[in-house]
Amino acid sequence: MSETAVVSRRKGGRVARQAMRAAPLTADKRAIGPGLESGSFKVLNDLQIKRIHTAVLDVLENIGLADAIPSCIEVVTAAGGVLKDNGRLTFPRALVEDTIAKANRNVVLYGQSPQHDMDISGSRTYFGTAGAAVHMVDAVTGEYRESTTQDLYDIARMVDKLENIHFFQRAVVCRDLADPFDMDFNTCYASVSGTTKHVGTSWVDPMHLEKSFEMLHLIAGGEKKWRERPFVSMSNCFVVPPLKFAEDACRCLEVGVRGGMPILLLAAGQAGATSPASLAGSVVQEVAEVLAGLCYVNAIEPGAPAIFGTWPFVSDLRTGAMSGGSGEQALLVAACAQMGRFYDLPTGVPSGMCDSKVPDYQAGAEKGYNHAITGNSGTNLVYESAGMHASLLGMCMESLVLDNDTIGSVLRTVKGIEVSEDTLSVEAIRQVCEEGPGHYLGSDQTLSVMQSEYFYPDTGERSSPNEWVEKGRPTALMKAMEIVRETMAGHYPRHISDELDREIRQKFNIKLPREQMTP
Amino acid sequence: MSETAVVSRRKGGRVARQAMRAAPLTADKRAIGPGLESGSFKVLNDLQIKRIHTAVLDVLENIGLADAIPSCIEVVTAAGGVLKDNGRLTFPRALVEDTIAKANRNVVLYGQSPQHDMDISGSRTYFGTAGAAVHMVDAVTGEYRESTTQDLYDIARMVDKLENIHFFQRAVVCRDLADPFDMDFNTCYASVSGTTKHVGTSWVDPMHLEKSFEMLHLIAGGEKKWRERPFVSMSNCFVVPPLKFAEDACRCLEVGVRGGMPILLLAAGQAGATSPASLAGSVVQEVAEVLAGLCYVNAIEPGAPAIFGTWPFVSDLRTGAMSGGSGEQALLVAACAQMGRFYDLPTGVPSGMCDSKVPDYQAGAEKGYNHAITGNSGTNLVYESAGMHASLLGMCMESLVLDNDTIGSVLRTVKGIEVSEDTLSVEAIRQVCEEGPGHYLGSDQTLSVMQSEYFYPDTGERSSPNEWVEKGRPTALMKAMEIVRETMAGHYPRHISDELDREIRQKFNIKLPREQMTP
Repeated sequence: MSETAVVSRRKGGRVARQAMRAAPLTADKRAIGPGLESGSFKVLNDLQIKRIHTAVLDVLENIGLADAIPSCIEVVTAAGGVLKDNGRLTFPRALVEDTIAKANRNVVLYGQSPQHDMDISGSRTYFGTAGAAVHMVDAVTGEYRESTTQDLYDIARMVDKLENIHFFQRAVVCRDLADPFDMDFNTCYASVSGTTKHVGTSWVDPMHLEKSFEMLHLIAGGEKKWRERPFVSMSNCFVVPPLKFAEDACRCLEVGVRGGMPILLLAAGQAGATSPASLAGSVVQEVAEVLAGLCYVNAIEPGAPAIFGTWPFVSDLRTGAMSGGSGEQALLVAACAQMGRFYDLPTGVPSGMCDSKVPDYQAGAEKGYNHAITGNSGTNLVYESAGMHASLLGMCMESLVLDNDTIGSVLRTVKGIEVSEDTLSVEAIRQVCEEGPGHYLGSDQTLSVMQSEYFYPDTGERSSPNEWVEKGRPTALMKAMEIVRETMAGHYPRHISDELDREIRQKFNIKLPREQMTP
Repeated sequence: MSETAVVSRRKGGRVARQAMRAAPLTADKRAIGPGLESGSFKVLNDLQIKRIHTAVLDVLENIGLADAIPSCIEVVTAAGGVLKDNGRLTFPRALVEDTIAKANRNVVLYGQSPQHDMDISGSRTYFGTAGAAVHMVDAVTGEYRESTTQDLYDIARMVDKLENIHFFQRAVVCRDLADPFDMDFNTCYASVSGTTKHVGTSWVDPMHLEKSFEMLHLIAGGEKKWRERPFVSMSNCFVVPPLKFAEDACRCLEVGVRGGMPILLLAAGQAGATSPASLAGSVVQEVAEVLAGLCYVNAIEPGAPAIFGTWPFVSDLRTGAMSGGSGEQALLVAACAQMGRFYDLPTGVPSGMCDSKVPDYQAGAEKGYNHAITGNSGTNLVYESAGMHASLLGMCMESLVLDNDTIGSVLRTVKGIEVSEDTLSVEAIRQVCEEGPGHYLGSDQTLSVMQSEYFYPDTGERSSPNEWVEKGRPTALMKAMEIVRETMAGHYPRHISDELDREIRQKFNIKLPREQMTP
């Protein structure tokens, strides 16, 4: 039965009004959107949170981190940190708690287009991509091939079109670029060219970042404008778990902080390998590492925008391999997100890093339960949430589209249930039962909440078995393939003008030909 | 790397001890199992719960239910109910609240084998099947064919083997049986013959139920033994939403209550069709209907075992079709489960009724997010949780196996995180960081928590892309097909002896030949 058919069940006089109600609503009236307040899932109780916090302070004050670079030691000890005889940099309780108290908790991650700005304060939640996959996955054959700069750009413009993916963090490695500078620089270029949503990426060398800043200033219209609305954040693995600073990443971090770039303080311990196998211990180490990073950032520049980036990974302890799709993964992330909310810090965690190599049942299930739990955990940012396979080794275009729908359904659960005199519906129930027609089809209330209470997936197949056979047994994947084809053929963001692009190409070695960025 | 390889990374002296630790643990030490305490997901706050409760009392006291049969009117009015002039039976606040206060909240659902008994008090959670699918689904071709008695028996013995499916409620209709008595009776027979787990089924006529009781008494070893451990419960749709009693179901309910059979009080309104489209209103109607049923059961026999069976379904309002896999579905169920916990009643809700016709990405995603939210909602029983497709129209054997893994991962999230001095791991972190080896692979703690903290799926594919290609690109579905083949060939429960079975066949018209119930 079509939408019109539902409407025409009613008496003629009200058809027009009802059709109007059934029409698409403005964004603020839709069931879901970016920045919904999250937090219905709480794996830890208050006592558990406090015990974890106490253990974290113990680790930071007494164990600390190894391998701090001189500039890090300088700023952190000036702020109250202590370099121990064994060379480890430790963070006394007062330093950690003062840093948490004074940290920037009103961070906005800007888009090149203001409609995509993300206020990541409170428990507002956004989903996006991330990762450094080295393969593109063929959704049908399961073929894995090396990812390229063109792939990265294509993923960016696909994300640009997908409503429930709110930001784009670099998802694949440009394996066609052998030179590290070319790779870092062109990764940034392809990302910011492919979408007006907020971009995240990373650099392996501070010089690469400095050059990228030059480009970003050009795109922004000058350094001042960049600093007003920094539309790129840095994913920074400043720590090599367990509890060692990473030299190059720290040098990049310092350049980024001073350049006004928000820093995702990313600690990615793998439980049972580089962090404790005990889930609680893994959370303790993750939180300690990220808070060390927060002290570092705030010692460089108080109030610099930084994201509490606890990315606890899971090992399958039978093999030692990462298992990104497990239930343990969901729990670890949810616990870390709760710690982020306990500190009221901008928080970003990963979810949806499924173990399956292709978008099959396993992939859907792993993404489904991980997103449901992570999305409701109170985190501000959900990274890795679309397109990923093989525990982050593969990226699939069709999965971006499929995952966009899964995220939409999960966002519907994040939105929760509105309870009001009107939605409780006692009068609507009375009318239907006592005055007829004995059902709610086509009732005023039904039509009025059709968009505001319900989310409709793009690819989800909802027809009956008979209709489905008649239609040739379409699957969500087939619909996703069609959406990928259409978007790749037609959607080329042109927010960076030809003139500006020429200027960038004159100054820098851009590897992606402009003609591959046009229809 | 194999389990042995992880172990052998360590120095030789400890290998034996560690191998012992890595060996399978007894059930009580495993990460998951039946009856885990649930409740980490709370979609409603206390005020919202109270407003819903108030609206429910309003509906019951002022609108009530139509079409009560004379025996229902008799017992309910004797308990304090009021028959209104318009013929509707209403339930004053005092009757409802007294009934809730006195209702049986210490219900055990027994298995034929005691190891499968389910204590459904508190927030203990169990997953099982349910439904009345009319098709069996071929997982590979997507072919839908009519389900038979043999299918029902095969599903029961498949469930008998699957560790995370804790009970078996009749999942398909025996479409090879034209006569309603034959169908009801043989459905009960095939179910209790196929598994020693607790069974749920339904009857359309009280006479069918009375005859089934005769068989159940035989199997139990007499009526007294049956009443001590009733191993079959009745799924009873006593209400046709909105707010009308169903005559035949009510007559069966009365026979069941008097025969000591636990009753699943099942209200299955479909939001936007037979219940309000507004989610809060749908919850109000569901809860009101089930509480009316609870008053009815307790008016027949105070303290009779009954399950708060709020099964709110969702319409896709564009077409009017049911959408069992939607995010709205998860929310509705979670809210109803929270109401069940508010009343502290044995609660059973559905989850995993995916819209997809086959076990593909969509099916996995829909089951994943629905199970994650429902499993953590505090419900005692999760019905429909395995095998279902096409919003309950199709049942797939391979999906039972796949869903068993999804449920396992979700149960891991239900279990939560143990926070103790030991699990917080500060000392383990200190040792690894300060004394080496700088990682946790093969550490004492890692080996000791390998089984107690982690769940390992049967079908989940966790190999790397390279290994995966070498293995011939296996998918979880392929592994599930193999498990189905093996189980169907080898697992024939023999808890009903040949002698007893002969006696049953002499007294009743059993349609399933005994030779199809043997290897």
